[in-house]
Formats: sequence, structure tokens, C-alpha cells
Amino acid sequence: MTIHTDALRDHAVLIVHGPDQPGLVAAITTLITRNEANIVSLDQYSTDPAGGDFFQRVVFHRPDLTAAFADIEKDLTETLTPYGVHWRLTDQSIPKRMAILASTSDHCLLELLWRHRRGELPVTIPMVISNHTNVADDVRSFGIPFFHVPSQGPDKAAAETEILRLLEGNVDFVVLARYMQIISEDFLDQVHVPVINIHHSFLPAFIGAGPYKKAKERGVKLIGATSHYVTKDLDEGPIIEQDVARVDHSMTASDLQARGAYVERAVLSRAVQWHAQDRVIQTGNHTIVFP
Amino acid sequence: MTIHTDALRDHAVLIVHGPDQPGLVAAITTLITRNEANIVSLDQYSTDPAGGDFFQRVVFHRPDLTAAFADIEKDLTETLTPYGVHWRLTDQSIPKRMAILASTSDHCLLELLWRHRRGELPVTIPMVISNHTNVADDVRSFGIPFFHVPSQGPDKAAAETEILRLLEGNVDFVVLARYMQIISEDFLDQVHVPVINIHHSFLPAFIGAGPYKKAKERGVKLIGATSHYVTKDLDEGPIIEQDVARVDHSMTASDLQARGAYVERAVLSRAVQWHAQDRVIQTGNHTIVFP
Amino acid sequence: MTIHTDALRDHAVLIVHGPDQPGLVAAITTLITRNEANIVSLDQYSTDPAGGDFFQRVVFHRPDLTAAFADIEKDLTETLTPYGVHWRLTDQSIPKRMAILASTSDHCLLELLWRHRRGELPVTIPMVISNHTNVADDVRSFGIPFFHVPSQGPDKAAAETEILRLLEGNVDFVVLARYMQIISEDFLDQVHVPVINIHHSFLPAFIGAGPYKKAKERGVKLIGATSHYVTKDLDEGPIIEQDVARVDHSMTASDLQARGAYVERAVLSRAVQWHAQDRVIQTGNHTIVFP
Amino acid sequence: MTIHTDALRDHAVLIVHGPDQPGLVAAITTLITRNEANIVSLDQYSTDPAGGDFFQRVVFHRPDLTAAFADIEKDLTETLTPYGVHWRLTDQSIPKRMAILASTSDHCLLELLWRHRRGELPVTIPMVISNHTNVADDVRSFGIPFFHVPSQGPDKAAAETEILRLLEGNVDFVVLARYMQIISEDFLDQVHVPVINIHHSFLPAFIGAGPYKKAKERGVKLIGATSHYVTKDLDEGPIIEQDVARVDHSMTASDLQARGAYVERAVLSRAVQWHAQDRVIQTGNHTIVFP
Repeated sequence: MTIHTDALRDHAVLIVHGPDQPGLVAAITTLITRNEANIVSLDQYSTDPAGGDFFQRVVFHRPDLTAAFADIEKDLTETLTPYGVHWRLTDQSIPKRMAILASTSDHCLLELLWRHRRGELPVTIPMVISNHTNVADDVRSFGIPFFHVPSQGPDKAAAETEILRLLEGNVDFVVLARYMQIISEDFLDQVHVPVINIHHSFLPAFIGAGPYKKAKERGVKLIGATSHYVTKDLDEGPIIEQDVARVDHSMTASDLQARGAYVERAVLSRAVQWHAQDRVIQTGNHTIVFP
Repeated sequence: MTIHTDALRDHAVLIVHGPDQPGLVAAITTLITRNEANIVSLDQYSTDPAGGDFFQRVVFHRPDLTAAFADIEKDLTETLTPYGVHWRLTDQSIPKRMAILASTSDHCLLELLWRHRRGELPVTIPMVISNHTNVADDVRSFGIPFFHVPSQGPDKAAAETEILRLLEGNVDFVVLARYMQIISEDFLDQVHVPVINIHHSFLPAFIGAGPYKKAKERGVKLIGATSHYVTKDLDEGPIIEQDVARVDHSMTASDLQARGAYVERAVLSRAVQWHAQDRVIQTGNHTIVFP
Repeated sequence: MTIHTDALRDHAVLIVHGPDQPGLVAAITTLITRNEANIVSLDQYSTDPAGGDFFQRVVFHRPDLTAAFADIEKDLTETLTPYGVHWRLTDQSIPKRMAILASTSDHCLLELLWRHRRGELPVTIPMVISNHTNVADDVRSFGIPFFHVPSQGPDKAAAETEILRLLEGNVDFVVLARYMQIISEDFLDQVHVPVINIHHSFLPAFIGAGPYKKAKERGVKLIGATSHYVTKDLDEGPIIEQDVARVDHSMTASDLQARGAYVERAVLSRAVQWHAQDRVIQTGNHTIVFP
Repeated sequence: MTIHTDALRDHAVLIVHGPDQPGLVAAITTLITRNEANIVSLDQYSTDPAGGDFFQRVVFHRPDLTAAFADIEKDLTETLTPYGVHWRLTDQSIPKRMAILASTSDHCLLELLWRHRRGELPVTIPMVISNHTNVADDVRSFGIPFFHVPSQGPDKAAAETEILRLLEGNVDFVVLARYMQIISEDFLDQVHVPVINIHHSFLPAFIGAGPYKKAKERGVKLIGATSHYVTKDLDEGPIIEQDVARVDHSMTASDLQARGAYVERAVLSRAVQWHAQDRVIQTGNHTIVFP
């Protein structure tokens, strides 16, 4: 849905997860009320109301939120510590800072830049980094800084180091918009922010390189795309969103790739939007995605 | 999702709607906690947190719900009266009683009977009424009583009176599963339970009779079906669910009808399931459908 | 689309496949014309017009088709032999004979029986065979013979032998409608007719047993079903049709299974209909499916 | 599917429509063979093989097509005149010239420009005309000429005259990419090329202005978009393509509009691609769209 930044002023998102237990929801909603805030929306999920894991997302409106923020955090600490749950509170009027890493393909990259310009992604984009230069002009035409970090040659570690230096302290999450380089474990250890990828298949089908070629060889009747958080296990991270498109026997692997591009850009855009809106909670190798 | 009646024991659904106001959510969740119940799920929607309309559905689990039910209702009355909101509390282990009215078509009817037998609809079906007899054997093979109430002739009022006599006191809602008779205003005044219809078009396109013929004439590329609550304005009641299917130039009106039957049975089944699970709230000519 | 058996009288389907070459289409269409037939529809696909593989499906109408059938076959032999292509001609008014093998699940089985009764599957169903008895009454209520062939015990070969004995000479293809027994290579060697299966995942994801449990563990956001011809490589046969449904984090493996049942019955029904209408051509491990 | 202009060299599309009759298909395919061409694909549709309307699209490959083009046209005239059918032959390597008319919205416009740059639309774009200037820079960044023709004021005829002057002789079809001006009958009389529009609703629902507002008021659960040829009857022209997206009660009319933009750009892009590839045949108020 369209994000009007003005409409997000004085709105906070509270994410709570931990062991489910009686009274937890009442404790949270009472806390919100006594901090003079109005609940705008509330979603929750419990793997089992008796002894399972509890996940909750509450959006509330509180006039002069900035002034009250520290007090609400203090109240949350005091109120929720006895329950042994994790929580985080974010001010919705402060957009997350998103870096995009890309290679030569422009379809996912331009879709994100364009949705951002339309005001549909509640983020700022401090930089786009690519190991190629062909997208530089397009990126800059959106008023976004572009950095070229080549990745060829034996020492890919140097490229990663350069990227980490650009990202450090400047971003809240990273999006791999068809970035065609394997991310090392070292990079993931040092990046300290979530990394979201788009894989060009309906995972777990066609893991690894060349999924459209593999899809053609297997003769599937649908192709797909999967957006997931990046972990050290390639193509195995927690899935945020997936979708598919119908194909037929007459399409070549190249046709599948062209058709798939439209699925990829839509799936990645939704995943990015949901992450930026604090709708996604990682739990083990899964995600909870609140609507 | 599958409904296991056992799993619904000691579960209640609380529906609240009325003017939104600070503290309302906290009041409700605190009430649930002090009545020794655990919140299983909670969904809410507000047209505007400041002065808008508030809608909430809470599912909670309370051991020995039956014994505590009257006390919880008393507490709700005392707690919520100051807020000026409407509420209703239902025991999820008591299935709603659903009557089905049908004519000669069997696709919506059999789908409902079959989903009910699979345990996917939390209802009992005390009767199927038809103005034809061709579906009688099928209905009875599911162990459901079948009543034939012919509707031809000048005096349709007599048929309606007979149907009302069968329904009275025996059902909680009525489903028109391609019942091809216009329901009179008198009938709606006297039935005193919600009536759910399936219309064989993507409303508001192709209102009235013969929608597949009209769809063929207009040359649409998708056909649809719409399930809605029946009101005195034909085909104008609050929409619960809609869906579509792709068609092409080569299909005749009869082909569209055959393809559309699959959309109709799916759309009606979802609408019935959601109604039976107290997921649907009517407001004006709209519905709020909680997932 | 609805199949009206009457409408298929005097209609033939000609399937041609082999090396593509100039003049082939003209030779075929001219042959049809000189045999006093009208082309009703014509679909073709070529992997490469210069030296690729050619696939064609022509439906034509010829008054008194039965009387002319042998002459047309003779003309086809003489005309097409020089081109080195395979062809088969079928009289559309003669429905294929379809056997269904099932276990305890009824959703795919009943969907096929019901679509058949509606006149939407151009087949006869001489028998349903199950290794369980729970579906017997339902099957017989459709007027279809039911045979119980238990498969437990060490000697599964005996059960397969019994099934082969029932099928032999009586059927043109076999449908495994969630038949939960592994089919042996011996069975496939001896059955001499195509066997169509429905796998309860979006192949090649989740090959083997327990796909819904695996889907829950992987945390996918869509589940699927795949209908394919059975080959000696389990779950690796040529795919005829696939589809998916959206799921979310709140659904258990059992919920996925319940939701998936609706995808399975739709996918299998489409695959069966297309096979019965001679719309599917196997080529290597792929299928060509003409619309 | 991706269009590689190189791949279209020496390819022609033949469209034939008229009264169906025996021998017509054979006459056409024989003609193609005797002109030393290979049939690449062939689709046809007949409203009734006995006396109905016949529609055919044949793609064929003929080395040195340009040199042979006039001879093939002459052969077509001689061969098909006795059948009384219409036909047109187009050289696929000559892209159609497409003008785009836009207003302030950029989503349909940029999608077309971007797909064109990717090589997915077999057209040239000699101009974009808008009654506003906000999209000028974006258009020119794609290397496409932009013309500003203001349309406010009492004399809209002057603006139309100016647009007609720009189009005359320069374009093969016109696309209204959310051009928010009513096209006059005079304009349609004088433009002499097909005009394709995108309407922001699932026609015939919500004809006229403000469809998203009307959709919100009616409480529909799906919104849609429709691409059609423009005729003198507003929103009543032959439909080329339609699609829908799911919405829910929580979305405002503005949210519906934002969601709908993605349906609009996809539907219009498909319609434009199919028109540019000569896949669409108008017949009365319908279209035949060959896959």
C-alpha cells in the first residue's frame, strides 16, 4: 500500500516475540494505553497459546511520539522483562536506510528506485553499488548515489571489503537486486544488518546457478521467484515472499528468463516493502509476515 | 483451513465494533486475561484511530468455557457499555446451523456438502431445500435431510411461506447455492438470519440474469463470481468474496458457464467458511473480513 | 471446456510429430481437404522451423467419419511416410477408457467422477481400484464399478498382478488419484498404457514422501501440485500441469495438506481432460500441451 | 516473450479472416509452401466450421522475404479472392511505429518505454505527447522525443488538431497511457490508426470516471484494469486484455489506485505487445487474441 511519510508521523511499531503466556497481550495493550497512545493495528501469531512462541506487531499513534519515545522504551523494559520476551520499538516516521547491490540487470533495481520515487517504499536509499557501470546513469537520474566496485580478479575479498566500508554506519539493510556475486561468510559476519536477496526460482526448486535453464530442462509449467534473507547457506535463508508465472512448452530458457524478470521485480519489491515496514519477523529459518 | 471440532472446544470468538477510542483494546484484552483466558488470535481494523469505526475479532481459549460463559458475558456488558460499542461472544465449539437452498445445479451444493463431510466447515446442515428433486439422492447420500418445495405457479408466496416454516428456529444462516428464484422482501423480513448468495459474475459487472451470456456479448477476458449477503436490492448486498478465471474468444457462453462453475463453488465455499467462523462483519453495504 | 459427446460425432484428432520440413503443413491440410473434411482447429509447435522437431494437432470434422476412417488412415500412411513423421488419428466420438487407482483420500477421485458425470471428461470409467474400501460406496453411487485390491504385506507384486489383470484390455489410460503405493518398474513394463499421477508438491521441489511436511519445514509461501506421466524415475516423469496456492506462516503441515487438496484435484482434472482430448504429446521428458 | 529483432528478419505474419469454408486452410498453407516459405506457427479459430467466421494467423519464414514480398502478396490476392476473405501480410522485421499519449501519471508510460528498451516490444516510438510536462525528462532519458500539447481551456479541439498534426503519417498506432482527456469522435475519424486505451477498472464494472472510488464504495474484493481499442462509445470498445488484483476492506480508494497501477501497466503492456505482434483481430465489438 502507498506509504505517505506524513501519515507516519507519531506512529510507532512495536514487535514482540518470545514464549506465549497468559496476560502478555493485556500487559502490552495496557502499556500502550497508559502511554497515551492509540492502537492503529495489531497482529499476532502464536505457534501454540499454551507454551508456544508468541509474535506480535502493534502499530500505535502517540502525539509527540519523539518526546515520549524514551519513556515508552523504559516502560517496555520494565513491563516486559518479567515475561522474558524480546521486543523492539521503531519510530515509523524515520525511514530505514537501504543500500542496493546490483550487477548488469536493471529490472529489480529500477523497480525499487521507481517505487521509492512514487513514495511506496518507506526507505531512504543512500547508495547503489554495482560491479558494473551500465546502470550508473539510470541510478543517478533518480538522484541516488552510485558506486562502482568491480569484483573480477582473484581477490574478491578486496571488493567485499570496499563494499563493507561504503555500507558501514550508513545503512539499515542491504538488498541484492540480482547481484550476481556469491556473498562470503566473512561479509555476512561483518555487515551487521539484514541482507535480502531475490532468487530467480521458486525455491527450493532449482537451487544454485542457471535456474531458468534448469526449469526449461525439467519442463515445468510455472516459473517462480523467491525473496529471502541471506544466510551462510546459499539459497537456504528464511523465505519472505514467493510468486510464480505460467509458462509453456514453446518458451526457450531465454523466454523464461524474460518472463521471470517480472516475477522477480514484484516479489523483491514486496519483500523489501514488508521488511521496511517491520512486518517481517525471522524465527529460526522461517519468517512471520504480518499483513 | 481445516476445522477440527475438537480443537475448537473451550474456544470463543469475541466480535466488537463501534466508535474507536483510546483504551478500548486494553480494556478488552485485560478483560480476557482476568477471565483466565488466553488470546489465540486478535485482528482489528479501524477506519480512523481518531474518531473512526473500530472492528475487532479476538479468539481466546478458556478452560471450562461453558461454565464461565455467562460470567464473561456479564463482564463484557459491564466493561464495554461505557464505550458504546456492539459486541457478540460465540462459543466456537457450537457449530452454526446452515440451511442450503438449491435448484437444479449441483456444483455449489455438492461442494458445500463435501467440504462439510471433510470437516472443513464448522457447521451442521439440518436441511437442504430445493424447488427441484434431481439433487435429492445426492444430498441424502451425505446423510442430510432434503425437502422439496416447488416454486412454480402464480403463488410463489406459498413456497416462501413453506420454506420459512421449515427454517424457523432451526437454522442460524441460509445459503443460496445457485437457488434460481428471486427472494422476496417479505421473505427477508421474516427469515431473521443472514442469507448468503453466490452470483455468477464479478459484481457489479453483469447484474441480473444471464451474466455468462452478457459476458460473452461484451467479450471480457476474465469471468468471475461474487458471494454476498442478500439484501432487498438484488445483487447489491455486501460482498464477502470474489474471484475470477481467465477465458478466451473461443469459448461460448456455455463454456463460460462451465468454467465459471468452478469459480462459483470456490467463492461460495470460502464465504460460507468465513461466515461460519465469525470472520465477517457487515458494516453498511461493506464487509470486514478478518483473515 | 465442456465436452458434449454429441458435438464430437464425426470429429477426429490428428497428431503429427517428427522432423520439421517445408511443405509438411501444406501436405497435411491438403490431405484433410481432399478427404472432404473441415479443419476445426489447428495448433502446432516447432522447436526450430529449420531442422527442429515439429508437433501438430488438428481437429477436423468429416461427415460419416466412421465410414471414411480407414481411407483417411491409408491416405495418411501414403502421404506422411515420405516425411518420416509419426502420426495418430483418433475418432473423438469414441471416449478413452480410464481406470482410476485410489487409496483413502477422496478429493481427487470424487472430483474426477463428478466432472465425468457433468460431461466434462470425454472418457468412460470402467473401474476404480483401491487398496482400501472407504471410497467404495461413493464410487458406486456414481454407477462406477469398484474393485478392492489390498496392498499390504510383503508381496506387493501380487497386488500389482491383480491390478494388471483387471486393467488388461479394458483401459486406455490409468490415473493415480492419490494412490499411495509405489508403482514398480515391472508394473510399468506390463501396463502398456499411459499412467498419469498427481504429486502433492510443485515439482521438482519436495520430491518423495511427505511434501507438505517438508514445505512447512522450509517455510515456503506457496504450495503446489504437479500432474505428470509416470516413468521409472519416481517424480521425474514429464510434467503435464502444475499450479500453486498461497499459504502463510500460521498454517500447520496439516493445514497445507488441506489447502493443497484443492490444488491437487484441479491440476489432476486438467491433466486428465487434456490427455483425454489428445492435447498432450510426450517428447523426451517434456510435454507439449496444445490449448 | 522477448522479441529479438534479428530473429524477426525474413519472418512475415499473415492474418486472414472471413467466411469459413472447406479447403481454405489448405489453400493458404499450400500457397506458403509454393512461395518457398516455412510455417513457424499457425493459429486459427472458427466460430463455426460450417458457415461461421474464420480467423487465422500464420507466421512464416522466407529467406529474402523483402525480395519476394510483392510476389507473395500477388499470389495471396489471386488465391484468396475467390474465397471472399480479408487478409493482410506484414513483414515482422519492420516494427510498427507507436505514439504514446500521457498525462501526469508515469506508471504505464515508463513501463512501455522500459519494455521497449529491453527489446520486448517490437515497435519504434517516434514520440510521446502529453498535456503536462512532468514526464518530459524521463521520456527523453530513454532517447524518445517528447511533445507538450496543453489541453486546458475551452478549445480542446485545438489540442486535438495539434496532436493529429504530429501523428499524421508518422505512426501505425496510438496508445493512451492513462491519458486523462476524452477523445472526440472527430479525432477518431481523423486519426486513421488504431488507438489502444487502458481503463482503470475491470470493465464493464465501473465505467466512466473515478473507478477506484466507485470500487471502494461498492466494497469489491478485487480491482482490475482493462485494455481496449477506443471507439466512439466511451469504455465500450473491443477488450484486448484484462486482469485483477486482490484488495481488502482496509484499503482506501487511494490504496486501490496505488495497487491498481501495477495491474494497469501489466495489462496495457500485454495488449500493446500483442497488437504490435499482429496477434489481435477485431471482429465486431470483440477481439480474437492468438497466443
